[in-house]
Amino acid sequence: MVEHGALTVIGLKWVPSFAQGQVRDHRVRWALREVGWEYEVELIDGAHMTTPTYRAEHPFGQVPLLREDGRVTLFESGGIVLDIAERTGRMLPSDKNQRALAKCWTYAALNSVEPFLLELFFADMMIEDKEVARGYRPHAEKFARDRLDKLSVALGDRDWLVGDEFSIADLMTASVSKVSENSGLINDFPNLAAWRERCFARPAFRDSIAEQLAEYERHGPADMGWDQDPTKN
Amino acid sequence: MVEHGALTVIGLKWVPSFAQGQVRDHRVRWALREVGWEYEVELIDGAHMTTPTYRAEHPFGQVPLLREDGRVTLFESGGIVLDIAERTGRMLPSDKNQRALAKCWTYAALNSVEPFLLELFFADMMIEDKEVARGYRPHAEKFARDRLDKLSVALGDRDWLVGDEFSIADLMTASVSKVSENSGLINDFPNLAAWRERCFARPAFRDSIAEQLAEYERHGPADMGWDQDPTKN
Ligand SMILES: N[C@@H](CCC(=O)N[C@@H](CS)C(=O)NCC(=O)O)C(=O)O
Ligand SMILES: N[C@@H](CCC(=O)N[C@@H](CS)C(=O)NCC(=O)O)C(=O)O
Repeated sequence: MVEHGALTVIGLKWVPSFAQGQVRDHRVRWALREVGWEYEVELIDGAHMTTPTYRAEHPFGQVPLLREDGRVTLFESGGIVLDIAERTGRMLPSDKNQRALAKCWTYAALNSVEPFLLELFFADMMIEDKEVARGYRPHAEKFARDRLDKLSVALGDRDWLVGDEFSIADLMTASVSKVSENSGLINDFPNLAAWRERCFARPAFRDSIAEQLAEYERHGPADMGWDQDPTKN
Repeated sequence: MVEHGALTVIGLKWVPSFAQGQVRDHRVRWALREVGWEYEVELIDGAHMTTPTYRAEHPFGQVPLLREDGRVTLFESGGIVLDIAERTGRMLPSDKNQRALAKCWTYAALNSVEPFLLELFFADMMIEDKEVARGYRPHAEKFARDRLDKLSVALGDRDWLVGDEFSIADLMTASVSKVSENSGLINDFPNLAAWRERCFARPAFRDSIAEQLAEYERHGPADMGWDQDPTKN
């Protein structure tokens, strides 16, 4: 057993329905559940994220954070998942070549895949000027599709991205692929959709998402300090 | 001395002038020079990146790659730099809390900063429909500015992002900040501009960029398999 201090994952009290299931603290909960480390959850609101105290822990004023008794607070889902994997040796192939490759894949997920899916999500959901969003969408979709296409070729007919077992490569990439969920783009790549199902069938994932959704169920926009659901105006 | 096999960094024969100085294999050369590991360089062209052989090593058909005798080929600048740092113990704080934080910062650079600067770069350089690009630019600039603003607050008046010495946090974040160089946005944040100067004054960085620019000097669009400079049509 690897030693660790008491753990707290920082998440959000509530997000609009289109973002539910994508909020990135699920990656940390998922990793912690994969390795069997218990954690508490602390849910914060919009105002809290802008305080200097919070910014001192999270430079970009976002979630997730992982607090641990006796240790520095970590930020960035990628960095936190890597840290958990390296400390426990879990979710990492035992072969040293594959281990290095699995780490590379976490960067690929976050730098070569997610940004392009995020742009599609922005075009569909976040760009306020709908005229601009409509003009920009084909550009965003072209890039997003290209990245999924290459990911699909890279996976081929294998079960997992690196080696013969689930690793942080799969955790991060499958989670990232949810970012433009509303677009349904992944369904154009049956091997990716099936691999993602394989990842999401893991109890650690299912319990993490269920836990997070139950929290949003208990809260609403007012708990974030918002007058109303920001997507409804 | 940490053992390693013969190393080859894969880069591009030539890129248009607006991209020169940003091509991501400089991150790998920079890290290798920081730790004093010698390397060869192999320059590839556009056609080579699309071959199945190359895609088997780089799922997204890009550069950089790091080949090493007796070891798997690594892809993704973030993963390669992390690997070099972890194997050598260099460019990482000795304190274990700060070491974990420095790794988190590499993900922050690549996932919380670079994508937003890249969008500004796309708006200025890559979106072919200039009408769309013009409409989209204010959205892109707002996000890019917000990230640099938060980065600037996070750095404050310290010399380095984590601890008292240069680390992979600085290497990756400073390199990432070049992505929207043409926008000049960083100059609105004097502490960032000064910190970046500090990073770029390091001999390992200067030699890497000089080496890369000298290669582009010796080549032209035809070496990439392009009829002409793609930005000139
Ligand atoms: N690069 C970060 C991204 C974190 C992120 O985007 N967090 C979102 C929730 S999924 C957030 O906190 N949004 C609220 C805000 O930006 O104010 C990571 O991977 O941890
Ligand atoms: N996420 C990758 C990005 C690599 C990347 O964007 N490479 C560019 C050069 S800077 C490239 O190879 N472009 C050519 C192409 O995409 O065809 C990394 O950090 O290594």
